[in-house]
Order: sequence, then C-alpha cells, then structure tokens
Amino acid sequence: MEKLLSNAFKGDPRSIGRLISLVEADTPKAKEIMKQIYPRTGNAKVIGITGSPGAGKSTFVDRLIEQFQKENKKIGVIAIDPSSPFTGGAILGDRLRMQGHALDKDVFIRSMGSRGHLGGVSRSTHEAALILDACGFDIVLIETVGVGQSEVDIIKIADSVCLVLVPGMGDDVQIMKAGIMEIADTFVINKADKEGADKVAADVQVMLKMLKEKDWIPPVTLVSSRNNTGVDEVKNTLNNHWNYLHTSNEGKKRRFSQLEMEVEAVLRGEISIMTEKLWKKRKQDGVVEDLAARKTDPYTLAGEIISEIIK
Amino acid sequence: MEKLLSNAFKGDPRSIGRLISLVEADTPKAKEIMKQIYPRTGNAKVIGITGSPGAGKSTFVDRLIEQFQKENKKIGVIAIDPSSPFTGGAILGDRLRMQGHALDKDVFIRSMGSRGHLGGVSRSTHEAALILDACGFDIVLIETVGVGQSEVDIIKIADSVCLVLVPGMGDDVQIMKAGIMEIADTFVINKADKEGADKVAADVQVMLKMLKEKDWIPPVTLVSSRNNTGVDEVKNTLNNHWNYLHTSNEGKKRRFSQLEMEVEAVLRGEISIMTEKLWKKRKQDGVVEDLAARKTDPYTLAGEIISEIIK
Repeated sequence: MEKLLSNAFKGDPRSIGRLISLVEADTPKAKEIMKQIYPRTGNAKVIGITGSPGAGKSTFVDRLIEQFQKENKKIGVIAIDPSSPFTGGAILGDRLRMQGHALDKDVFIRSMGSRGHLGGVSRSTHEAALILDACGFDIVLIETVGVGQSEVDIIKIADSVCLVLVPGMGDDVQIMKAGIMEIADTFVINKADKEGADKVAADVQVMLKMLKEKDWIPPVTLVSSRNNTGVDEVKNTLNNHWNYLHTSNEGKKRRFSQLEMEVEAVLRGEISIMTEKLWKKRKQDGVVEDLAARKTDPYTLAGEIISEIIK
Repeated sequence: MEKLLSNAFKGDPRSIGRLISLVEADTPKAKEIMKQIYPRTGNAKVIGITGSPGAGKSTFVDRLIEQFQKENKKIGVIAIDPSSPFTGGAILGDRLRMQGHALDKDVFIRSMGSRGHLGGVSRSTHEAALILDACGFDIVLIETVGVGQSEVDIIKIADSVCLVLVPGMGDDVQIMKAGIMEIADTFVINKADKEGADKVAADVQVMLKMLKEKDWIPPVTLVSSRNNTGVDEVKNTLNNHWNYLHTSNEGKKRRFSQLEMEVEAVLRGEISIMTEKLWKKRKQDGVVEDLAARKTDPYTLAGEIISEIIK
C-alpha cells in the first residue's frame, strides 16, 4: 500500500488508476487511502463540465485539455458514465474523441459509473478527484452525465462549474427548473458556428438577471469546439474564477461550505454502514412482513435501530 | 393533535391539509403524526404520473380524475412543483386546469415543493401520500416534475408508475438514459390527435423489448386528453396493475422492497439530524479552518464524531 501510494504521488498512471479503483470499490482500504491522500489535496483546480447530453461536452473538454496543455498543466479527466440505476449498465457509448488524449503524457482520463440515486456525481467521483489532486494534477475536469437535478451535486465538489449549452436544444426551461443555472460559474454556448447561438447567449443573459446577484457574474462565452474558437477565453475565465475563489469572501464561504459537505457526506456514509448491518438483521427476522401487516411502522423501526447503536 | 387527526380521518379537507403542512415543515410533531397515520395506510392506490414537462401531464391527470370519479372513488392529488434548490421558489406556474376539480367533493388537491437534491420526489411527498391514504382516499395521484433521473424515485412510493409521452418531443434517449423506461408500469402516448403519436407508440414498444422481461408487460395506450379518448383504458390498466401487485410474486417483491426503502429513508433522515447536531458543535469550534489548512481530514473528523455518539 505504501509503495502504491508513493508511486501514485510520483505520478505513475497505473498506480493512480489502481488507487481510484480501490476507493471506487469501497474496499476496507479505501478510508486509509483517503486519509493519506487528503493532506496533499487542495491544489488542483477542480472544474465541473455539465450540460444536456448532446451539448458537445466531450468535444469541448477535449479542446479545453489542449488549452491547459499549452500552460504545461497536468490534467486529470473524470468522465461520468450514465449508468441506469436499474440495469446497472452504461447505456451510452464511449467518449471516443477524448481518447485522442488518452496517450498524452500528463493527461489522465478515467471513466466512472454514475450509480444509484445520487445521480451523476457520487461520493467516489469526489474521492477520485481528491486522488488526482493529491497526485499532482493541476487541473481536474469532471464531465457529468447531464440529466437533471442530480447534476446540481457537482457544485459540492467543483471549484468552478461550467455549463455547456447549444442552440436548438430548447433546454432552457429544463435547466431553470433543475436549478443548474444558479450553480454555473461560466456559461459556454457551444456549436457557436450553428444558427441560433447568439439567441441562446442572449437568453442566458436574461435568465441570469433573474437570479440573485452575486459578486461573481458568470461570463457567457460563444465557443465552437469544431473551429476551436472561444475555448481559450473559457480557460481564462476559469483561471479568473479560481483567483476569485481564493481572494473573495464569497469564494471563501463557498470553499468552506464544500469542506463541510465533505465531512457530512463521510459521516452519513459511516453511520449508514452501521445501520445497514442492523437493518439487515431485522429484515432477516421478518420485520418487513410486520410492516406489510401494519403491525409496526418505519418510524418506530428506525427509532429501534438507532437506539441500538447510539449512546 | 388528537382532534386534528380524528377530523382528518373523518375526511375534513382542512385538517388533512394541516397535517400535510405539519409533516412537510418537518416539525417536531411530524414523527408522532406519522406513527399515528401509518397503521391506517396500505389501502390507497398510489399512482405516479411522470413524463417530460410539456407532455400534458396535468391535463391527463385531470381526465384521469374524472374516470375515477365515475367509480365513486375519493381521489387525492399531489402535484409536485418544480422549485429550485437554490432560490427555494417555484419557477413554473400553477396547474390551472386541475383547479377545475379543486372544489369537487371527494377530490383533494395539494401542491408541494420538490426541494433539494432528492429531486422531484421527496420524503414529504411520500408522507403526504401516506396521510391521504390514511384519511380514506382510494386513489392518490402524484404528478411529478419530470426532469431526469431523480424522477426515478417515484417508484419508491408509487404502486403504479404511468409515463406520459408526446409526439415531437424527441425525449426518447433522455428517458432511456434516466432509467425511467424501466420503472413505467404503463405508457400513455398523449396528444394522440397529433401527428407522430403512432410512431412514438411503436418506438416505445421497440424500447420495451430491449429491457429485461418481467411478468407485467407495460401496456402502451394512445390517449387524447383533449378529446378524452383512451383515458378509460389507462384507468383499467391501472386497476389491473393493482391486482397484479397483490396477486403475483413479483408484485409482492416490489411492495416489500418499497417498505424496506421506506424504513431506510426514515433511518437516513434520523441519522442526518443526529450528525448535523454533532457536526454543528465541531464547526463552531473552528474545525473547518483546520480542514482548509489540511490539519485534519474528513475521514478522521467523521471518526471522531461517530465515536462520540456510538455505543
């Protein structure tokens, strides 16, 4: 384990991948790994790329990688795969384009499942980002799945959230509804070579005015990933936003609130493990039959289970 | 409290509304209310109506109410309002049409916020459905918001899930991705008077063949809410599905699994309350500053907090 960690800290991609796998599989070693990882974190810029499927997120990420490469940055990419909560399998295919960078030195690409009800951004996504951070990556790009409200979770782990929109998707209302507008630190109007991009940009500006005003006003940038225009501007915006986060009160508040959510997530996870064990035992004792017959209720049951473990 | 409960059990709409409000606001009384409610539940058919915004869910619900009224059923409706997790406010407007039934005897309509990261179907939605069940409603219709993966949660609380689709929305892929196909017990192709409805129905049939086969094969029904055609057929399907749930092994499995999820949800809620209390104290002691400086880590912190409360 010590060897694995030290190799990973040296930047060995295989060791880094192995660490992520150990943590993703939630092995007993996971907690120990994360304790070793944590003191080395806090240096990487973690950037969430979100937006509807079909908005061209992967291609945009591809271009963004190139921009950061020009700054000689080490770049880690976590691409979240949309897996169905029921079949467990990934429905969409690979992100073929991004593979172009898979063999680049200083670019590490990892695909992760989205798993269960937590939506696109799971606990292990966060832990993978922390691992990449600790292993010396300057930039960690997280490309989310892009289906609705669960996406909002990206704000719990990203320093900057980049929302990618395209003309002709008509997803403005959906985005408003899902609360994603509010979490975006920068807007990318992708496929700006297509008709209607200006209109989308104008609409976003209007919608932004409806939101509560903040110190940081999210820039709206027209981008053509195909023609490679506007991507450098987005990169500059992201760098500015990082500076903002580390020099403003609002930025500090956000960073602190993320740290709090981190502890809360770990806490919930730990206690869940304990209660699950007890709950499993009760289920084997036939308590679900009692529930079905209304001989007991979930509130009484939960109280009983909790009183078994709590002082 | 006793008086409020007994009035609600007699069917007094104001008392029922008050109970739901008390539970929704998560007052200290909420748990006590739910313990009293629970033994009386298990009789109502809880039907989830889901589908993209713009699919005409509200109008369809409107028509479905009329069908169940013909059977002299008491009908409760919970319409989930899309509220932003950040502003807390509802963005979309009222469901004006359904208001036509708001004054009908034996129809109770309640609008609830969707709140936070749990998406469209929250714990309090479930509790409201249980309250309506306990107060003698035969049918509880839950109309969801319709934005993505969080919608899938409706299967945790509904006996039957009805997915409403319309021609020309092109949301097939989104639905596949969000795993909503898998949870639908019946498909409604709404606006069947419009061109393309047959095509949508055929597409759904094709997609259904891709899923794991189950005992219950979800019927696909062409409906025109405007012309009021096909709605009676959907009602019959829903009645059949209820019978299936109560006569088949698969149905029993599903009902039991819902009961399990119910306990787990209550457990999670209780655990959150406890951890929040403990965590709040630590935060006041300035531990977040220590985290920011990497003097400690979330895993160590969580361990410390847990050892304080666990036997």
